[in-house]
Amino acid sequence: MKAQIYVTLKKTVLDPQGATIARALQSMGHPEIAGVRQGKFFEIEIAEGTPKEALSAGLNRIAEDVLANPVIEEYRVEILD
Amino acid sequence: MKAQIYVTLKKTVLDPQGATIARALQSMGHPEIAGVRQGKFFEIEIAEGTPKEALSAGLNRIAEDVLANPVIEEYRVEILD
Repeated sequence: MKAQIYVTLKKTVLDPQGATIARALQSMGHPEIAGVRQGKFFEIEIAEGTPKEALSAGLNRIAEDVLANPVIEEYRVEILD
Repeated sequence: MKAQIYVTLKKTVLDPQGATIARALQSMGHPEIAGVRQGKFFEIEIAEGTPKEALSAGLNRIAEDVLANPVIEEYRVEILD
């Protein structure tokens, strides 16, 4: 089983890195790019035999405590089969 | 319109950062985590009135030339409405 955790800056937090990428792309001849925000994601391999019920709570705790900074970032957890 | 580009290390490339995260999580009481691979993603805001036909080719070129290093990374482009 696999899970994915996506971490992005909150909409209200400035993303200067994304803004720089957007400007660079525009100057490279991609006027269709209006904005870029960068995030990170984690592909997580889940050990065999893990009960699916407890998994979601555990992954949310991992995202909240370790992978994201909840002050400025938000996260999304997806469990794949 | 929005698009997302996901960039990950190729399966054959070692991801020491992901391995470190996995070990840390296991030692923090998450034995269900068998492995972690880290990637990045880009949320792209597309300018109004961009024709959808040309968009996919343009985004693939951006991913290939700018956002990913095709020697060690692979990417996936998703166009959302």
